[in-house]
Amino acid sequence: SEGGMRVKTLFLLCTVTCCLAQKSGILSSPNIIIMLMDDMGWGDLGVFGQPSKETPNLDAMAAQGMLFPNFYTANPLCSPSRAALLTGRLPVRNGFYTTNGHARNAYTPQEIVGGISKDEILLPQMLKKRGYISKIVGKWHLGHRPQYLPLEHGFDEWLGAPNCHFGPYNNSVKPNIPVYNNSEMLGRYYEEFRIDRKMGESNLTQMYLLESLDFVRRQAEAQRPFFLYWAPDATHAPVYASKGFLGKSQRGRYGDAVVELDYSVGEILSLLRSLGIDNNTFVFFTSDNGAALMSGPHQSGSNGPFLCGKETTFEGGMREPAIAWWPGHIQEGAVSFQLANVMDLFTTSLALAGVSPPDDRTIDGLDLTPVLLNNSVLDRPIFYYRGNELMAVRRGQYKAHYWTWSNSWAELKKGINFCPGQEVPGVTTHEQKEHTMMPLIFELGRDPGEKYPIRFGDKEYMDALSWISPVVEEHKSTLVPGIPQLNMCDVAVMNWAPAGCEKLGKCLKVPSSQPLKCDWPH
Amino acid sequence: SEGGMRVKTLFLLCTVTCCLAQKSGILSSPNIIIMLMDDMGWGDLGVFGQPSKETPNLDAMAAQGMLFPNFYTANPLCSPSRAALLTGRLPVRNGFYTTNGHARNAYTPQEIVGGISKDEILLPQMLKKRGYISKIVGKWHLGHRPQYLPLEHGFDEWLGAPNCHFGPYNNSVKPNIPVYNNSEMLGRYYEEFRIDRKMGESNLTQMYLLESLDFVRRQAEAQRPFFLYWAPDATHAPVYASKGFLGKSQRGRYGDAVVELDYSVGEILSLLRSLGIDNNTFVFFTSDNGAALMSGPHQSGSNGPFLCGKETTFEGGMREPAIAWWPGHIQEGAVSFQLANVMDLFTTSLALAGVSPPDDRTIDGLDLTPVLLNNSVLDRPIFYYRGNELMAVRRGQYKAHYWTWSNSWAELKKGINFCPGQEVPGVTTHEQKEHTMMPLIFELGRDPGEKYPIRFGDKEYMDALSWISPVVEEHKSTLVPGIPQLNMCDVAVMNWAPAGCEKLGKCLKVPSSQPLKCDWPH
Repeated sequence: SEGGMRVKTLFLLCTVTCCLAQKSGILSSPNIIIMLMDDMGWGDLGVFGQPSKETPNLDAMAAQGMLFPNFYTANPLCSPSRAALLTGRLPVRNGFYTTNGHARNAYTPQEIVGGISKDEILLPQMLKKRGYISKIVGKWHLGHRPQYLPLEHGFDEWLGAPNCHFGPYNNSVKPNIPVYNNSEMLGRYYEEFRIDRKMGESNLTQMYLLESLDFVRRQAEAQRPFFLYWAPDATHAPVYASKGFLGKSQRGRYGDAVVELDYSVGEILSLLRSLGIDNNTFVFFTSDNGAALMSGPHQSGSNGPFLCGKETTFEGGMREPAIAWWPGHIQEGAVSFQLANVMDLFTTSLALAGVSPPDDRTIDGLDLTPVLLNNSVLDRPIFYYRGNELMAVRRGQYKAHYWTWSNSWAELKKGINFCPGQEVPGVTTHEQKEHTMMPLIFELGRDPGEKYPIRFGDKEYMDALSWISPVVEEHKSTLVPGIPQLNMCDVAVMNWAPAGCEKLGKCLKVPSSQPLKCDWPH
Repeated sequence: SEGGMRVKTLFLLCTVTCCLAQKSGILSSPNIIIMLMDDMGWGDLGVFGQPSKETPNLDAMAAQGMLFPNFYTANPLCSPSRAALLTGRLPVRNGFYTTNGHARNAYTPQEIVGGISKDEILLPQMLKKRGYISKIVGKWHLGHRPQYLPLEHGFDEWLGAPNCHFGPYNNSVKPNIPVYNNSEMLGRYYEEFRIDRKMGESNLTQMYLLESLDFVRRQAEAQRPFFLYWAPDATHAPVYASKGFLGKSQRGRYGDAVVELDYSVGEILSLLRSLGIDNNTFVFFTSDNGAALMSGPHQSGSNGPFLCGKETTFEGGMREPAIAWWPGHIQEGAVSFQLANVMDLFTTSLALAGVSPPDDRTIDGLDLTPVLLNNSVLDRPIFYYRGNELMAVRRGQYKAHYWTWSNSWAELKKGINFCPGQEVPGVTTHEQKEHTMMPLIFELGRDPGEKYPIRFGDKEYMDALSWISPVVEEHKSTLVPGIPQLNMCDVAVMNWAPAGCEKLGKCLKVPSSQPLKCDWPH
């Protein structure tokens, strides 16, 4: 808090004692930057085996920091994943799930009534205790109704949108998504904020980069510890890139978007260095869920050697590219095989800031500082959920599937395929298959692609099962699900008249309320 | 040749003039080491995205050298691939193919009558013109009858075996494979050279490493330019590793073998450095064909994001891990997107040695020195053959399939699967499908996994077709196939009585000759 309150002039007048206090304050409260990509896959980075090898800045970040090949999201879909990151809690606890159907993914389209509960405690709220100033740049996706927006949940600043950049809409049946500056709308996607669907051109990534650089510069100047949550969405369909990046990659439009994001990562790290705060800024790069293979090949990334993609609880749906960077603190070029998770970013950030995590609720995130600073490896499970169903659990190299399905035959027949070109009989099923009594177990070290279930009854199977089962039982027997936020939809709640629309003359007529259970096909 | 003839004492007495000549001789004739792995896949290296990230020496080699993400073998099977490497010519030209069936892969089991023709010119024969001494350590696989062995084709030394380390056999129906020292057998696998099939233990990789280090040391001492062809086979089923490496990887036995090979690469490069000849030694690391997915998961590697594996002409069958290393000459950490090929190692090695390639025959290999030294990119096609059928052609990012099949339904039903867990309808077919009039075309930049054929008739399709077709027509209209060497099999030609067996009392009774057409099911 000392750092946060101190103004520049006071700092210039400070005594040696004051400067020492400042210094120790800085050491215990490093700046925190979380870079969260949208639908980017594990295999999209050169360092994770993308054949085009066109992410030099991310590859350099890995060479200077720590790579996490076993890093996971908490859900194979964007909203729950982001809610988990910011609360340190599984979606089934923080309410970012649905009970409308069994094992269904849900998110926050414009029709969604719910959002992040006031009862949840978000990372920026906790960091405030130590004087951090927090900004989100880019996609929010934790609910778009006024009470759910970032500045209601601890963020001090925001430039970005509450929902996906779908569209363009004609503003009659559905409004275009607003872009906010803090608590008021600035305009809408496809209107003031151009996205050319045909050419895939938009300068949004540049805008989100410049806003981030500006924020970092301002906080460095003010000597305030900061939390930047950089969440650009260029790799989510409809994929876009700025003019200068279009056609520059070997991978088409999707690759162009990746190259621009990689460039942006380089710019941010470079600014930290030139401001001399690189040794005092913890940066973590990851993605919200696996590559959206159903949008392939033009609008989809790569999940490398892993099975299926976004929407599924196979490795391709939930294993994420991940790099930690903190010069002078994290060993250069380290690789950690720790099973880690976006929820750990909550707990780890608090540990770095010197804030105790909330003690009145279950926190699923782990404090990774022993991993980051000493390359320790902690035994912990990874839970793979769809809705409120625990589909699979990983412990060590073993992963047990209690339920399998990719999507339904009906959806598949419509051409929606979460596992294009992949088919593992009895595993990538199009019915929900229950295996709770005898889970399908894979050893992910030799079989990262989940192609060879271990034979039921083999000693290895029995050993793995008896190692995983207690963790699952403990988890299930103590789980108290939160109130599901993603059950109800209503056309009346769409972004018709976001705050600030009056000043811009951009308020639309709100239709009458028609609350319905949301339909979640997957 | 100056370097090759000069003895150490003469060198110590030499004048300044002489030393300058020596220096320029060294510059124009660097040592050459080709490291050829067996069934190792593109995705087996950390630098190519293996999640276990346990190839630190290869990853460092890449960081110090040039990575080739678009490097290919000339055939998805071992013998033809190796014949192509050493002759610089496609198997269909050098005779390493069969005409017994359409589009069938063939190799050199013990029953094979043929081998590398005396009419072919091998790399060590050419290098001799400049005084190189050449050694092969490991697997030969270009025919095991006396006239086909390495010392008959330009190599000065050999420690290794002519065939795969299949077995153990009881020496009645089939003899165990001999291990040669130069022209005489030293013993047999599973007899004098132990391979424990149950535990996967063998010290062969250590033996092949020590032999290589010894060779390098001897040549450095003698100031002779050398060619080392290091061809260990630990990653070919039955996969093995030395005791000290067993259980050390995250990937089971296969991973243990990779870790031991990676360690060996580190030892070889380290020796070059300590001898002070690293700046004068060109090293190239690659593999003979894609990972043998049909041996998965315990005995198989990974082809990363690519389709299928060994035996197929999909990317997984023929795209190889590849790294060039030559400190002081190749830019550190470079990545070349050149479409390159094992046959280029023939031509490139000759260029480095200052030898003109044979001018009385077609050489398919390209001189990669402009790529290595200036990161130029040369337009050239990649041809994908099975037997004498041109299955597919890549030019730039486009790949056209003229024939598709993985293997037959009959073989598949026996449990032999070259594409486990993968199925691209109409592409990974189990009948030989002809597409010569309208090839299936993939854009490998955005679709490296060959999952989305470009739609017939789309402009992109027509453009790609008209770009690839002339290359194919030119190739087909000028191709003169060599005499097929892999058509005839005979139990009498097996390794019953290899040279040197008398001294060891290890000659076996040769059965009567029963020549038959070999049966090639794939």
